[in-house]
Amino acid sequence: MPAPPVSVVGLGQLGGSLAAALAAAGRPVSGWDTDPAARDAAAARGVRITRELTGVVVLAVPLPAMATVLDGLVVDPGATVTDLGSVKGPVLASLGGQLGGRFVGGHPMCGTERSGHEAVDPGLFAGARWALCVEPGTELPRWLRVAEVALAVGAEVVPVTAAEHDAAVAAISHVPHLLAAALAAAAAEAGPLALALAAGSFRDGTRVIGSDPAFVTAMVEGNAAPTTAALDRVLAQLQRPRSELVAAGHAVVTRPAGRRPVRIPLERAALLSVGRAGGAVTRRLAAFVEGWVPDAGD
Amino acid sequence: MPAPPVSVVGLGQLGGSLAAALAAAGRPVSGWDTDPAARDAAAARGVRITRELTGVVVLAVPLPAMATVLDGLVVDPGATVTDLGSVKGPVLASLGGQLGGRFVGGHPMCGTERSGHEAVDPGLFAGARWALCVEPGTELPRWLRVAEVALAVGAEVVPVTAAEHDAAVAAISHVPHLLAAALAAAAAEAGPLALALAAGSFRDGTRVIGSDPAFVTAMVEGNAAPTTAALDRVLAQLQRPRSELVAAGHAVVTRPAGRRPVRIPLERAALLSVGRAGGAVTRRLAAFVEGWVPDAGD
Repeated sequence: MPAPPVSVVGLGQLGGSLAAALAAAGRPVSGWDTDPAARDAAAARGVRITRELTGVVVLAVPLPAMATVLDGLVVDPGATVTDLGSVKGPVLASLGGQLGGRFVGGHPMCGTERSGHEAVDPGLFAGARWALCVEPGTELPRWLRVAEVALAVGAEVVPVTAAEHDAAVAAISHVPHLLAAALAAAAAEAGPLALALAAGSFRDGTRVIGSDPAFVTAMVEGNAAPTTAALDRVLAQLQRPRSELVAAGHAVVTRPAGRRPVRIPLERAALLSVGRAGGAVTRRLAAFVEGWVPDAGD
Repeated sequence: MPAPPVSVVGLGQLGGSLAAALAAAGRPVSGWDTDPAARDAAAARGVRITRELTGVVVLAVPLPAMATVLDGLVVDPGATVTDLGSVKGPVLASLGGQLGGRFVGGHPMCGTERSGHEAVDPGLFAGARWALCVEPGTELPRWLRVAEVALAVGAEVVPVTAAEHDAAVAAISHVPHLLAAALAAAAAEAGPLALALAAGSFRDGTRVIGSDPAFVTAMVEGNAAPTTAALDRVLAQLQRPRSELVAAGHAVVTRPAGRRPVRIPLERAALLSVGRAGGAVTRRLAAFVEGWVPDAGD
């Protein structure tokens, strides 16, 4: 069976990069954006511009626009719909409610503090992890169709539930945004001398808050409860004796990164167990997928 | 008057880079390290290896070694002594007590999470800020001699008191190390899935805790009270409504960076006012120094 066509709605950094990467790989890809400049930029990269969406439909718009993004567009009734939003619970509630098992929530863990079609990079997904939701109602053949799109642009697919995803990204993305904001604002309170002496550790620790504030706010407010829980874990860590805290943090960032290959049957529980173990799917075969889990033996 | 020779004690990343940069610029530079491999590496870059220290003596050893680093070495009684330690109050109390006005505390705001002579880079100081302490007892001609060493390797010199320095670096370096450690440790608590999904914002936010834990612990414990005060400011920021916090942090990292050139008379108060305004010294002339302060007019 040939790979289905892909239709990308929203041709900014993420959507435009995905469409460009697929077009560069020779896959039929169409797209739409409300911004004519984004449409023109995508067309120049080989993306067919149309409001008629078919195959795998990828919604690559900001979270606040997600619920209404399909208004005025024509979606093939057989199409599989996925999204690239950075929070999955609210999107599942909204689009999963409208589309049922045809909707497969996703979130590629890439993107930079830049945004918009000027920031398009067809190599953006190479080596990235791409969270892809397997809910009780998810139709697995559709999940695989979306997974193949992610694999086609060089990503590794992490099977998750929306709730697992939102708790995890609170810890590794949403809280880092809040810490970066607090670090920057507190340094400004400390005064011009502090900002003048700021070097590598401050630049690294605050870089992510250079992102569009509306995007960051929508993300942390759209994932409020998991973000609060994850922030509370950080605050508890900060209560530890400093030498203990430093050693614990150092051990995490310098942990060994061994991998053990696995074959995963096409079943929801088996897929999710790979994600929970910290592993990913790297290849689809006929009756199973291949991937890896962390190797605890090294 | 020709530039005085420079003697560097400790030829790891910072000291080795300084010695190498000075040697590359044709300045007479000697050095010592207890590690024969570090001595050999420095000798290969044109550094004369000796225990006899003269001219501007630069102590580039870890904080715990600072108080006893001169034991067993021969220091010219007329030499000016400076250091590169990341906390200035304790070093001033220790070496300032031994050396009086001949000691000028310093701290170049560079270095990476790597360490040791393998991490030597003669370009390390280019464009970096270099805090240099002007205390009530500092002999200004000696301060200028050290400032010239910093300027010679491409740094900009920020005049500070030790107390001002320690408060500032708590905010922009020591607290970032603790936040990075807490972020990493809390993400590990969240589980393998969270770590598997970790991408740019987590890598940036935790990079600095890849540094040697003994070095980081000595730094934050050596600057305990200012670090606690700076951390408290971060914790207070984290209590703000999230949209407000995000906007405040974003404004700091995207602030305009205008500069206004200034001429600064060779007086303690005038030099310190430039540092407090967030400015730096960039050039020494006969009767004054040149530099810049932030331009509030843009």
